[in-house]
Amino acid sequence: MADGAFDLQAGLLAGTVATPPKFGGFPKYQFIGGHNDPELIPVEGFAEAAAEVIRKHGAQLAIYNLGTGPQGYPPLREHLANRLNKHRGMNITADDILITTGSNNAIDLATDLYVGPGDTVLIEAMSYAVTINRLKKRGANCVAMPLDDKGIVVDEVAKILAGLKAKGVRPKLIYTIPTVQNPTGSIMPLDRRKKLIALAHEYGVPILEDECYADLTWKGIERPPAIRALDPSCVIYIGSFSKSIAPAIRLGYVVADWSVLGRMTANKSDGGTGALDQMITAVYCEGNFDKHVDTLRVALKEKMEAAVDAVEQQFGTMATVHRPEGGIFIWVGFPPEIDVTKLVAPAAKAGVTFNPGPEWSVDAGANKNWMRLCFALPSKQTIYDGVAALASVCHDVYGVPKFSANTKRGA
Amino acid sequence: MADGAFDLQAGLLAGTVATPPKFGGFPKYQFIGGHNDPELIPVEGFAEAAAEVIRKHGAQLAIYNLGTGPQGYPPLREHLANRLNKHRGMNITADDILITTGSNNAIDLATDLYVGPGDTVLIEAMSYAVTINRLKKRGANCVAMPLDDKGIVVDEVAKILAGLKAKGVRPKLIYTIPTVQNPTGSIMPLDRRKKLIALAHEYGVPILEDECYADLTWKGIERPPAIRALDPSCVIYIGSFSKSIAPAIRLGYVVADWSVLGRMTANKSDGGTGALDQMITAVYCEGNFDKHVDTLRVALKEKMEAAVDAVEQQFGTMATVHRPEGGIFIWVGFPPEIDVTKLVAPAAKAGVTFNPGPEWSVDAGANKNWMRLCFALPSKQTIYDGVAALASVCHDVYGVPKFSANTKRGA
Repeated sequence: MADGAFDLQAGLLAGTVATPPKFGGFPKYQFIGGHNDPELIPVEGFAEAAAEVIRKHGAQLAIYNLGTGPQGYPPLREHLANRLNKHRGMNITADDILITTGSNNAIDLATDLYVGPGDTVLIEAMSYAVTINRLKKRGANCVAMPLDDKGIVVDEVAKILAGLKAKGVRPKLIYTIPTVQNPTGSIMPLDRRKKLIALAHEYGVPILEDECYADLTWKGIERPPAIRALDPSCVIYIGSFSKSIAPAIRLGYVVADWSVLGRMTANKSDGGTGALDQMITAVYCEGNFDKHVDTLRVALKEKMEAAVDAVEQQFGTMATVHRPEGGIFIWVGFPPEIDVTKLVAPAAKAGVTFNPGPEWSVDAGANKNWMRLCFALPSKQTIYDGVAALASVCHDVYGVPKFSANTKRGA
Repeated sequence: MADGAFDLQAGLLAGTVATPPKFGGFPKYQFIGGHNDPELIPVEGFAEAAAEVIRKHGAQLAIYNLGTGPQGYPPLREHLANRLNKHRGMNITADDILITTGSNNAIDLATDLYVGPGDTVLIEAMSYAVTINRLKKRGANCVAMPLDDKGIVVDEVAKILAGLKAKGVRPKLIYTIPTVQNPTGSIMPLDRRKKLIALAHEYGVPILEDECYADLTWKGIERPPAIRALDPSCVIYIGSFSKSIAPAIRLGYVVADWSVLGRMTANKSDGGTGALDQMITAVYCEGNFDKHVDTLRVALKEKMEAAVDAVEQQFGTMATVHRPEGGIFIWVGFPPEIDVTKLVAPAAKAGVTFNPGPEWSVDAGANKNWMRLCFALPSKQTIYDGVAALASVCHDVYGVPKFSANTKRGA
């Protein structure tokens, strides 16, 4: 009977993904992925929180959603409401929050409600690759909003919206990462936030605000309130514990009016977000979050400085670095003749991975001379070594940079 | 600017779910949902496992998937491979397993690969409501396989497949819950499993085997190997920790050939299953799983007996009860004139919830005189009281049962 001749692939739907290779481990210089610094995980705090909350409330694990309903563990939502009120200028309660299985789950649930094939979505010209890809996969027409060093150029958005209106197109959503923009690292100032809200009202387009990195702004950097804090009526707000606590813990959240939040809750099809992830994070964060994040902000800024130094040392004047105002990545530009997509394969061979600009661009042909380098996971020494290896690859392919830390290559 | 006039619902896609009410807590007599017994959660074991594994490996939380790749936490997969080899007759390694965010995630990922609109899927005439609903939602043509007290009547399946072939239809999948069938509680004997495999080969239709309840068979009940153990070539196997450990912990798993498992892994879009759920469960289960499940099997059988007793006491000869061979539910039939869907609203008013037969039926008009009662969550006393309340509701609506525990109602 087990003749081995059975063809499991015969009935696969057309267009199914190819069989991938098995996971082979990380490269030596891993500059991709929203990882954090393993040395900054509050291990002891989490161990104590885990033992405490399981002893107190572990019996509830017998019940789906701990018996507390599909919006997520109430103490976690209460912590979040307090925190978002204190730090992001909101005025919400735990009832206004849905816990999601990572922020991608939140993005999916929100776009599920609004975006069908052919629908138009406004999105920053450079943005989170996962959002861009998922919007395109569902057949959305992604219209790029131009960026400068203060985030979206809102006056240009006014023109885009007017132009679309003239063609009878009402976009479904304006997706933005206003606080530590991904990948450019900017923070949108208050006046632009207000103007964007005015445009949302004028054209009847909800704003999908993604604040995954908002906790990680450097000390002393001015951080305006969330757009949702300025106008709860037109904004669906998304956040995450991935960057402030740990990405392997799958916890994101949404803040929205119940007309949207309730529907997202109803459509959440995973039987609830992992309960141990929720319970332990809730107990740890209550009382520890602010202090932990303050530590992170200092340590990550040091790593950012190391990454910028490494790029400047290794690439000299040929590189333009966007110094982010928080977060875990830098956005690095090269002269137009450098196509970083041509460096991907040789860099991988040298043990270096990075995000080429086109992956992080709405127009897949744009930003070929830019790359995103994530700096939170590697040590400072690994950052220096990895950027040096990358410069060496670039020299092999393009003959530049000719110098390494002021020493001529090959000299 | 915050004029409150913004209409968040204007742009919602057609057919979007209605805004649900907020969660209002469980009713007094909750006979729905795959919950377990809160008193049987190994709280201390979990607390110790949590503290231990976080202290040892917590730093890895900084990395997506703990840095161990998208198939799931290796120690959890190793535990599963050992357990499935020992108890379900398999011959697999950790590499053959994908950890999913609950078994529904596994069902979605498998059906994503095979089932498009208009495709045919064979499914037991009575089956898991979530699978039925999700198959119908994706436009599948669900063809019911008849059941008896030994599971699928495989000879009838041969006729169904021949009939479909004559019409040029090759079904995409045969979905079955062979070990503690949901809702009928049967266990498919070895000879039927072998015949089903032969049919899968003859007609080129993969079997999607859902063994969510297979750990919970009563002691002394014969439990044949998993269908996948008998023939790995044609079976995609799904299991869950929800019933054997806890449903609020979101852990399911798939065993399949890499040509399918790899694609499911590539399509898994949640950034990995919750790491604390995985790590803690892995450490607890290693060394404790068998003993814990033995405890569960004894305790759940007692609750099953209580539920059967309660139904027999309260409904007398008007009820037919399928005594399950394991699991957490009984399947109860009434005379044809009783339409249990008419009891749903008055029962809810009396604090009793149950699954009406049509919800658990491929043909939504079938089994109107049947209901599923889940017994793991309520105490034995609550089971008795709840079934008495249900009988009282039934008496109010239909005038039967006339007796309650041999005492005439209203006498």
